[in-house]
Amino acid sequence: MDTVSLFKPEIQELLEGRDWPQLRAILREFPAPDISDLLRELDESKRILVLRLLPKHILPEVFSYLDPRLQEDTLRAITAEETRMILAGMPPDDRTEFLEELPGQAIQKMLNFLSAEDRREALQLLGYPAESVGRLMTPDYVAVRPEWTAAEALAQVRRKGLDSETIMVLYVTDAAGKLTGVLGLRRLILAGPEERVAGIMIPAVISISALEDREKAVQLIQRYDLAALPIVDANKVLLGIVTIDDLFDVAEEEVTEDIQKSAAVAPLKASYREASALSLYGKRVAWLASLLGISVITTGIIAAQTEMISSAIALSFFIPLLIGTGGNTGNQSATLMIRALATGDIHSAQWGQALVREIGIGVLLGGTMGLASWLLGFFNGGMKIAVVVALAMTTIVIVSSVLGVILPIVLQRLRIDPAVASNPLIASVMDILGLVIYFAVARAVL
Amino acid sequence: MDTVSLFKPEIQELLEGRDWPQLRAILREFPAPDISDLLRELDESKRILVLRLLPKHILPEVFSYLDPRLQEDTLRAITAEETRMILAGMPPDDRTEFLEELPGQAIQKMLNFLSAEDRREALQLLGYPAESVGRLMTPDYVAVRPEWTAAEALAQVRRKGLDSETIMVLYVTDAAGKLTGVLGLRRLILAGPEERVAGIMIPAVISISALEDREKAVQLIQRYDLAALPIVDANKVLLGIVTIDDLFDVAEEEVTEDIQKSAAVAPLKASYREASALSLYGKRVAWLASLLGISVITTGIIAAQTEMISSAIALSFFIPLLIGTGGNTGNQSATLMIRALATGDIHSAQWGQALVREIGIGVLLGGTMGLASWLLGFFNGGMKIAVVVALAMTTIVIVSSVLGVILPIVLQRLRIDPAVASNPLIASVMDILGLVIYFAVARAVL
Repeated sequence: MDTVSLFKPEIQELLEGRDWPQLRAILREFPAPDISDLLRELDESKRILVLRLLPKHILPEVFSYLDPRLQEDTLRAITAEETRMILAGMPPDDRTEFLEELPGQAIQKMLNFLSAEDRREALQLLGYPAESVGRLMTPDYVAVRPEWTAAEALAQVRRKGLDSETIMVLYVTDAAGKLTGVLGLRRLILAGPEERVAGIMIPAVISISALEDREKAVQLIQRYDLAALPIVDANKVLLGIVTIDDLFDVAEEEVTEDIQKSAAVAPLKASYREASALSLYGKRVAWLASLLGISVITTGIIAAQTEMISSAIALSFFIPLLIGTGGNTGNQSATLMIRALATGDIHSAQWGQALVREIGIGVLLGGTMGLASWLLGFFNGGMKIAVVVALAMTTIVIVSSVLGVILPIVLQRLRIDPAVASNPLIASVMDILGLVIYFAVARAVL
Repeated sequence: MDTVSLFKPEIQELLEGRDWPQLRAILREFPAPDISDLLRELDESKRILVLRLLPKHILPEVFSYLDPRLQEDTLRAITAEETRMILAGMPPDDRTEFLEELPGQAIQKMLNFLSAEDRREALQLLGYPAESVGRLMTPDYVAVRPEWTAAEALAQVRRKGLDSETIMVLYVTDAAGKLTGVLGLRRLILAGPEERVAGIMIPAVISISALEDREKAVQLIQRYDLAALPIVDANKVLLGIVTIDDLFDVAEEEVTEDIQKSAAVAPLKASYREASALSLYGKRVAWLASLLGISVITTGIIAAQTEMISSAIALSFFIPLLIGTGGNTGNQSATLMIRALATGDIHSAQWGQALVREIGIGVLLGGTMGLASWLLGFFNGGMKIAVVVALAMTTIVIVSSVLGVILPIVLQRLRIDPAVASNPLIASVMDILGLVIYFAVARAVL
C-alpha cells in the first residue's frame, strides 16, 4: 500500500536536482492518498514545492487527505490565491470536515476565502451538531419533480449529473422541496420518454433527519444497502445526501472510539500513531485512577478477613484465580452484549430474553469451572478448601455472566455509552463481588 | 427502524381474512429488509403465503436478506420453479454468499437450478478460499477498450449499464483482458466524442488479487475512497469487481469477530441474538478453561510465599489491587495497539517507535499510580508495606504497558490474530507477572 514510499529516494533525488518536469510526470501517476503520504514524509519547504507541482484539479483532493495539523501548516505557507483554489475545489462534505478541525479564529479566516455561495453552504453545514448527520451532508445530488416526464428527468441528469456525487439514484421532490420518492437511473432509462416520474419512482424513501446521530445513518445505509442516504428536515424537505464512502469512515471512527472506551481509554480523536506520549497519558490516567479507586474496596474486604486468612492461609492462594475468572466471564458476556447493542442485533427492550439465556449459560459455565477448581482446591488445600473454592467459583461465574448482560443495558438506559461496561469496569466490579462471595462461602463452610 | 413490525397486527389480520389484493398493496410499500424482518416473525405457512404475494422482481432481494436458516426452510417449502426464479434473480455476489452457507449436498442441488452460465459463474466464485476477495466478486461491471472512442465507450455504457452494479466508473481492459486503467463517467461525458479512451483514462489503477484476504479489500477501498474495487488474477486480468456496500458488511463482520476474540470468545458466525445458549457455552468455555489453566500458576506463586504472607498478612490485602491495575494498564496499551494494527494506522515494522513511546507513558502512569498506592499502603499497613506496594505498583504498570505493545506485535509476527492479546489474555499474564514482581519487591524490602 505504500506505493509512493518506494519511490521516495527517486523523488528526493528529483527534488534535489530540481527536475520539475520529470517530478510532475511521476506524481501524476499516483492516487491522492499516496501523494498525501509522501507529503507527510517530506520537510515543509519540499512539501510546498511538491504541492505546487501537482496538477490543479487534484490538489484539493490531496489536501483533503492530509492530517489536520499538516493542513494548517500548509495553509500558512501557501498564497491566498492557492488557498482559495484548494478550498473551492474541495467537495462540501470534505470542506466541512476540514473546517471543523480548525480553531474558531482560523475557521473565520478560511470562510473569507470562499465564494458567497460556498460560504453560506459551509456555515449551514457547520451549524449542525458535531456528531450529527448534517455535518456529513453534501448538496451535490440530482433532484427531479414527480410531474416531470422521464425525458425531462434524463435531461436534468445530463445538466446536473457531472457535479453530483452519484447519479445512480435520483431524488424526487415536490414544489415545496419535500422528498416524495427515489428513482433509480436504471428504471428511468428503461421507462418510456413520456412516462411520468411519479409513476415510476419508489414512493417509500428511507431518509434521516439532519439532526440525528451519524451512527444512525451508518445503521440505515447498511440495513438497506444504499449507496447514499437522503437527509431531510422536520418537514421532510430534502437538505442533502450523505454517501456510503463517508459513512464507511464514520463507522470505522465510531468502532475505534467504542473499542478505546471499552479498554478504559478516553477516545483519542487523533490517530494512535500521531498521538503524543503526554496526551496518551492524559487519556489513560483518569480511568486507571478511577478503577484504582474502586479496587481500594478490595483491600478493605481482605483486611476485614485477616483473622480467617491467618487461620487458613490457603484461602489467599485462590484470590487471583477466582476474581480473574469472574472478570473474564463478565467480560465475555458484556462484550457480546455491547456489540449486539451497537450493531442493532439486540434492542435494549429485548433484555429479558438475553438475561434468561445468560443465566442458562452462566449455570453451565459455572458448573464446568466449579468442577475444575474443585480439583485445584483439593490438591492445594484439602477437601474443605476445595468445597469453598468450587462453590465460590460457580457462584462468581454465574453472577458475572448475568452482570455482563445487565450492566450494558443499565448504562444504555442511563444514556451512557454501554462500551464503558467492558472489561476494566466489569473486572473491577467483579473483583469486589468475587471477594465478597468467596469470603461469605468460606465463612459458611469453614 | 422496525417499520413493518408496526403493521404486523394489520398484516396478520389481512392474512387471516385472506385479503390478498390489500396485502399485496401494503407489502409493496416496504423495502426488502423490512419485509424480511416481517417474514422472520411469521410462522412457516404464513411466510410462504406472503412470499408468494410479493412482486416477482423483489422476491430474490427479500430472500437474500433472510437468515441462512430461514432461507433453507423456505427453499424446502416452495416449488422448483420458484426456487429457480429466486436464484436466477439474485445478484452473483449475494448468490455466492447464500450458497456458501449451505451444506455440501444442498449446494449441488441448488446449482442444478441455475442456468449453465450462472452455474459456471457460481462454481468459479465458490472456488475461491472462504475469506478471500474472490467470494465477494460480481462480474456486473462495464468494461471498455483503450482504443475505443468516447462515443463507443458511451454506447457500451448504454448497452451494459443496466445490468451493472455501477456505471460511475468504467474499467479499461486490453485485448487480453488485462486491466489497464479506469475511466470515470464524468470524464467520459466531458470528453469529445472522437477522443480515445486511452487518452482520458487514469492509468494508475488500484486493484486487488482475487486470492487476497477480504480485509485487505476493506482497507484499500477505504484508503482510496472508491465506490468499487477491481479484482484481478496473477496476470492482472480483470475478473470482477467488489462494491463498497458489500465491503461495508465485511468490515462490520470482521470488527465483530475481532471484538469477540478480544473478549476471549470464539467468533460466533451466527448473530448473537440467534445463537443458542449451548453454542454460546461452547464458544466461551474453552477460552475460560485455558485462562484458568494459566491462572493456576498464581495459586502456586502465592502458596510458595506462605511463610512471608503469614509474617506480614497485610501483603495479601493488596493482591487484587496490584494485579487488577496491571491487567487494566496492559489492556489499555494492547487495545490501542491492536486497533492501530487492524486499521493500518501502525504497521508492525514501526513497533520500535511505539515501544519507546509506551515506555515513556508507562513511566508516567507508573509514577502516578505508585504515588497513589503509596498512600493506600501507608494507611493500611504502615511505612514498609507502603514502600513495597508503591514500588511494586510502579514496576507492574511499566511492565504491563510495555507488554501491551509487544504482545500484539509478537502474535502478528507468529501469524496469530493480535486481537486475542486483548484483555483476558494480558490480564492473566499480568496476574502472574504482577505476583512475581510483588513478592520479589516484598522480599527485597522486608
